[in-house]
Formats: sequence, structure tokens, C-alpha cells
Amino acid sequence: MTVDGTHDPALRSWVVSANEADTDFPIQNLPFGRLRRAGSSDAWRIGVAIGDQVLDLHAALAQGQWSAELAALLQPLARGELKSLMAAGASARRPLRAALSDALRAGSSQRDALAACLLPQAQCELTLPCAIGDYTDFYTGIHHATAVGKMFRPDNPLLPNYDWVPIGYHGRSSSIVPSGNAIRRPNGQAKGPSASAPVFGPSERLDYEVELGFLIGPGNELGTPIPIAQAEGHLFGVTLFNDWSARDIQPWEYQPLGPFLSKNFGTTISPWVVTLEALAPFRAPLQRPAGRPDPLPYLHSENNRAHGAFDIQLETWLQTAAMREEGAAAVRIATSSAAEAGFWTAAQLIAHHACGGCNLQPGDLLGSGTLSGPAPEQAGSMLELSAGGKKAIRLPNGEERTFLRDGDTLTLRAYCERAGARRIGFGECSGTVLPAVS
Amino acid sequence: MTVDGTHDPALRSWVVSANEADTDFPIQNLPFGRLRRAGSSDAWRIGVAIGDQVLDLHAALAQGQWSAELAALLQPLARGELKSLMAAGASARRPLRAALSDALRAGSSQRDALAACLLPQAQCELTLPCAIGDYTDFYTGIHHATAVGKMFRPDNPLLPNYDWVPIGYHGRSSSIVPSGNAIRRPNGQAKGPSASAPVFGPSERLDYEVELGFLIGPGNELGTPIPIAQAEGHLFGVTLFNDWSARDIQPWEYQPLGPFLSKNFGTTISPWVVTLEALAPFRAPLQRPAGRPDPLPYLHSENNRAHGAFDIQLETWLQTAAMREEGAAAVRIATSSAAEAGFWTAAQLIAHHACGGCNLQPGDLLGSGTLSGPAPEQAGSMLELSAGGKKAIRLPNGEERTFLRDGDTLTLRAYCERAGARRIGFGECSGTVLPAVS
Repeated sequence: MTVDGTHDPALRSWVVSANEADTDFPIQNLPFGRLRRAGSSDAWRIGVAIGDQVLDLHAALAQGQWSAELAALLQPLARGELKSLMAAGASARRPLRAALSDALRAGSSQRDALAACLLPQAQCELTLPCAIGDYTDFYTGIHHATAVGKMFRPDNPLLPNYDWVPIGYHGRSSSIVPSGNAIRRPNGQAKGPSASAPVFGPSERLDYEVELGFLIGPGNELGTPIPIAQAEGHLFGVTLFNDWSARDIQPWEYQPLGPFLSKNFGTTISPWVVTLEALAPFRAPLQRPAGRPDPLPYLHSENNRAHGAFDIQLETWLQTAAMREEGAAAVRIATSSAAEAGFWTAAQLIAHHACGGCNLQPGDLLGSGTLSGPAPEQAGSMLELSAGGKKAIRLPNGEERTFLRDGDTLTLRAYCERAGARRIGFGECSGTVLPAVS
Repeated sequence: MTVDGTHDPALRSWVVSANEADTDFPIQNLPFGRLRRAGSSDAWRIGVAIGDQVLDLHAALAQGQWSAELAALLQPLARGELKSLMAAGASARRPLRAALSDALRAGSSQRDALAACLLPQAQCELTLPCAIGDYTDFYTGIHHATAVGKMFRPDNPLLPNYDWVPIGYHGRSSSIVPSGNAIRRPNGQAKGPSASAPVFGPSERLDYEVELGFLIGPGNELGTPIPIAQAEGHLFGVTLFNDWSARDIQPWEYQPLGPFLSKNFGTTISPWVVTLEALAPFRAPLQRPAGRPDPLPYLHSENNRAHGAFDIQLETWLQTAAMREEGAAAVRIATSSAAEAGFWTAAQLIAHHACGGCNLQPGDLLGSGTLSGPAPEQAGSMLELSAGGKKAIRLPNGEERTFLRDGDTLTLRAYCERAGARRIGFGECSGTVLPAVS
């Protein structure tokens, strides 16, 4: 991945808020999202976040000056359809990104025309960036897998296949919702270790999981694997992803076919897709723990090993209902690093997913798995933070939590920061817990 | 479910082939499929199988006499869109079925107009009946679960949750293909019990699984469960379903999150959807083995227990490449009964799937799981027929099989037959194994 002029940290935008030090969306980012004016029944359109504004590509197609090639790329975006750009791959994404960067930079001749195409983000309703086809959740967080494995198998936390297989399973697409949607606590079956029969009722161990969501760009034909060297070419961009989990439903249901209702009651995705191009300055070697075997050849490439990871800092924030009533801001309960947490790269997940011929399609979503760091305070779930529910975490207002309670708002945030590069962020991935259906 | 005049076994069609004793598609069946003339680039349209013909609903809308209500139901079908009918539920399906039955019965005044709307099935290309949203595969075949469980855990074949939880997991939608598509043998990781590391290569234990596919009609909102008493109202119809499986990839990859690449390289569905109305005369009590606990209340209804199962006879046919060259017909290698094989009803699967709030959508697919009977020759997979690969089955031409070889064509067929009712069938669910990518 080349770092081109669109990443120049000195580059500034005529959109003033994009130049603020702490914005997630400087001109170096330019993530895509699907939106309309809040409260309107406008058609959805694709927009690009810039500072606290959105460049509405429906308006921008009409108002701006674009070459025929760019106009052809913008037309489906103007109709709210991101998948054609996803399917077209980097050779389409890069010139479009360069043109948008040019149009939004300070001194651009397009300023007057495009200023009328901005919508304040605060006045926008953001939905899923695209209709998500198939969703697969992986388990690349080795510290998470180890910590959770220890609760079930103290002597043997990591199963033998973990070193070799990028463990993953198919998830539920229909219940993926964009940030801001409430999540209803599920009812389900759970069985205590000494009980003779399960009981049905609201989950008492509702949890979150900090993940990255990898959105697929170009697909592959059924029956045609994707070589590891080409795998990253099938990646469009990255979002934040909260894989809400019911920890009491999961252990009872998951043998032998894996998690099901403990996961499919709702999954939250951040609405802005940060493209591979925006992430180019923030690539890193994968920090695989020492002593692990090399991947099998179909998963190995030097290039992938050398800078296949994303140096993304992850943060988890919690605001309880009581905090909201008291006017207290959300509190950060954990941080971790995606580069440090993961055992496999996105390219390896893609190559593995397709190695038997399974076809990936534009708009498919791969979850990274929970990205916990090695330290207890770097945990990516309440299950880990509370040591399986045994040790409550204490909040500044005196409340305690082992798992999530009704009214809790859980928010993921993330950013990339590195010397010589402009900081970029991902926006929010947030949801509030509603009480179970009675 | 009421049995109305459309099931009268004396009812005959002006389509002569529909009156033959052994047709799968008498006028009492009327399944829906999505098709066009083979070799054409016509738009897809929905058709109804009748004898060896298809009533093309695109043509029938234009040529036939229909009330305004029926024309409104037919319009999306004429455009190849089945989901609006699926979403509309039984209150739309029943009058449409009655009208199609009237139009196709011997003596109908519509005969002359609609005779021009028939296409020979042999000249049609059939595709998936609809774009399948989410696909979930269940594990309701208790004889299959017991037989396979015995191979892994001789003393404890059924896990404790089997009695209580309709075990299921999310599957891969993108690789579901209609009958007639070849299936490429997957490459993947496998590890022998004494090997120190896995190897990557073509699956050597390629298998099939005999299942029913339940297509969802009306959906539910995210967060809103479906009560068991209403669950069958969310079912549109039933297909045959072959969940191709790689038995050497599966044991190595499936812990702790379930089967993944061992299942997602391809799944075959029969293209004709047999509606709940067509199945009404063939309902049966669920033959749950004695001594099992009653389901929890959210899964219990007397009505469901009394006739929640489908009395469908299942057949598996195999034709090897050598048999094809010799001109030998396919040989039937197993038979079983869906009513006898299943531990949970379709209504229970739906109620369970939605009990935590997961939203089902029109066109979602639920696999029943492998429907083996209690006897060895009633097995629904090669894994069972060959006792885990230990005992080859011998074919009439002297060939032997423990698992599937390249060039093998595996075909599922099914029918319903009962005194006082007209036999109906499901057509074919067929696929031929291609060699792995080298």
C-alpha cells in the first residue's frame, strides 16, 4: 500500500472543522457512509465525512466538476449505493479519493460549488453503509481467546487448532444495526452447572465485544480461492464493530455447532467505513507472540507479515442510566491496540475464508473477533474485565458492573495516531441496552 | 392448516402430464420456482410447476383473467420477485393457490388463454427461488445426531443440551446454489490424530447431508420474538437441501465456534418451493423418542405436537462417473422419513430462532439438519452409511464408496404419499462433484 499525497499531514481543508486537532475526520481520512437528513424521507445517499460535516455525494455529483470517469463512479454513490465502488476495488477507490481530497483541500477551485453540498453530521441520520450480505465473525484476538479459554479450560486455554486455523464462524446479517440503535436484552435458555434443567428468561450476563469490521470489496467466484498475495485487494475498508453477547446463553447452546442465539440478537457497526487508503500510514507488523508455528503456505506472505496489521487504538466507553441522569459523561473502561491484539491479518482471514472456494461478495462483513490486549485493563469484553463476573468494575459514581444493565450505553471509539501522520478516527459505535421483552 | 378443495385427489388438470400417477407436480402441488427459458437472456420470472410444464406467471398475468387482488399478487411474481408473496403470508398465498388451481383444472375457462403460457420444464433454467438473506442450519435429526455423536463420544453421543435446545448455527448464504450446479471439492486444513501439524489439500472425506429447507415467509421485527402458536405463519414453504460437508476439515476446525469451511464451499437447494398449503394433507405428529423431557413453554404447543411434522419421504440417489459412462442409471443408496427423523418441528425452529429477538426476513432459509432414520440404511450422509469411512458401500457395478469421489452425482428426491391424498413430490436436488482446484 503506497502512502500518497492524500496523507500529507500538512494538507488542510476549506472545511474548517476538518483542521481541528481532535477531529476523527480530517481531510486525510474521507470515510464513506450512507445517510439522509435526519427526520426526512429523502432517499439515502453516500456521503464522505469531513470534520463535523458530510459531503453529500448526491449533491456533489450535480454541483461539482468531475471527469467522466469520476462521474461514473459517483453516480451509484449519489443513489446511495456503495457496492459498485466496493466491487471496483482499489483502482477505482484511489482516483476517487484523490479527487475528493483535491476538491476538499484548502484553496480548491471547487470550494464554492461544494460548500452547498455539505450537511452537518449532527443533522444526518446514518444507516448501514450497504446491505450486508454474509457476515463472518473471526476469533483473531489471541489475548481474548486465551483469557476466555482459561475460564473454561484453565490448563489448556488455547485449543490446538488456534495456532493453525483462523478460527471463524458464520454470523447473522439481519440483526446488524448502525450505531445509535438500541439493543434489546435477549431472552433465552440458560442452565446453571448444578441445575437439572435449563430456564428461559432474560440474559443476566449481557456483554459487548470490541472488534473491527472488515468490509469486502471485490468478490471471488464460487469455487475460486483467493491467494494470500491478492487477499488485501478484496478488502474495501474498516469499521468498528460491537458483537453483543449473552454469556449465559452461550455456554449452554454452543456445543457442538457454535454460538447462535447468544450472538444474533443484535450487532452494532459504526457507520463510517475507513478505507484501506486512509489506513495506509498506519500499517504495522503483526505482533504474533513468539514460539508460535509459521502459518501454512496458503496463509503466508512476507508482505502480509511485515505490515499486514492495522495500528488502530481501541477505546470502550460506558455511560449508565444513572450517570446520564446525573449529567456525568461516559467513562472509558478499557483500551487496546488492534495490531497487538490480533493473531491473524485481515488478508489471512480473506485467504482462509476463500481457500475452500467459498465466494465472498462486495459488502460482506468479516469481524476480527474481540481485540483484547495482554493486560487486564486492555480487555475487550465485560467477561474479561470482570474475570467471568467474579470481580465487579467500579465506576466513578460508585456503581458497579460485572455485566451490562438495562439503560447502559456502550460506545466504542478508535483512532490511528503516528509520528509524521495526521490522526484519523472512526467515529462512534454505540448502543443502549433496552430491557428484555417480558 | 385446513385441507381445502385444492387437495381433492380427484382433481385433474387440463395439463395432461399433471395427471400422470408418478408426476411430482400434480395440480394438488403447484410449487413456485424462478426461471427463464434455458439459453435465453430473458428476465427471470416466477412460475408454477404443473406436470412436466411450468405456468409462466409473467405470461399468465398478461394472458389470463384475474381479479384486481390477484393481479396485484401476480405482478411481482411476473417480475421474478417471490419475496412479496412470501412476506404476505397465508392470507395471500391461499387465494392465489385457489385461483391457480381453478385456472389449471380440467374444464377451466382459462385453458385456452393459459395454454400459451406453459413452458416445458425441460426447456427451462431454474435458479434460486429468491435471493436468500440469512441461512441457518439446524440439527433436528436425532438419529443423525446420535450416530455422529457416537463416533466422537461413544459413551455420550447426545450432549445434554440436545433435549432442550433446537441446536442450530448460522450458515453461508452466498454459496447456496440451485440444483444442477456442480460442486467443487474444497481444499482445506485437516490433521490426522497422530500428526503434529495439519496439512492443506483437497478434502478426502467429501460428504452430503439430506435436509429439508424451510423458507421464511413473513418476518418479525428485530427485538420482537415469535410466539410458538404463530410460528408456522412465518413459514412459506419447503425445499430439499443438500448441505455438502467436508468431514476431514470439520473436526479440525470446529472447536470452539462450530463448522465453517467444512460447510461453506457449496450447498444445493431444489428450485421448487412446495408451499405449506400443498403440504396440508401430509402433516403428522412429531415422532419424538420416548423418555425425552417436554420442551420449555416457549417451544410447546399442543397443535404443533399433534401435527407439526411433515410426512415427507426422502431418497438419496448416487450415479458415479463410471456408471454414467456405462449408461447405468443412478442407484438409490438411502431412504428416510422427515417425520420420523426430526426432533423439533419447523415451528419450534422459528420460535426458538426469534426467542431472543433475532429478526427473520422473507426469503431466509432454515435447514432442518440431516434427516436420518433409525436404521443404518436410512442414513442421511455417507459418514453414517460408511460408519465413519470404515465400511464401504458397494454399488451395483462393483464400485465402492466411503465418501464421494470426483464425478459422482448426488441427487435428493422426496415425495408425500398418503391414503386419500394425491401424491406430490419435490423435484430434484442434484449436484456433481468437480475435482479440487490444484
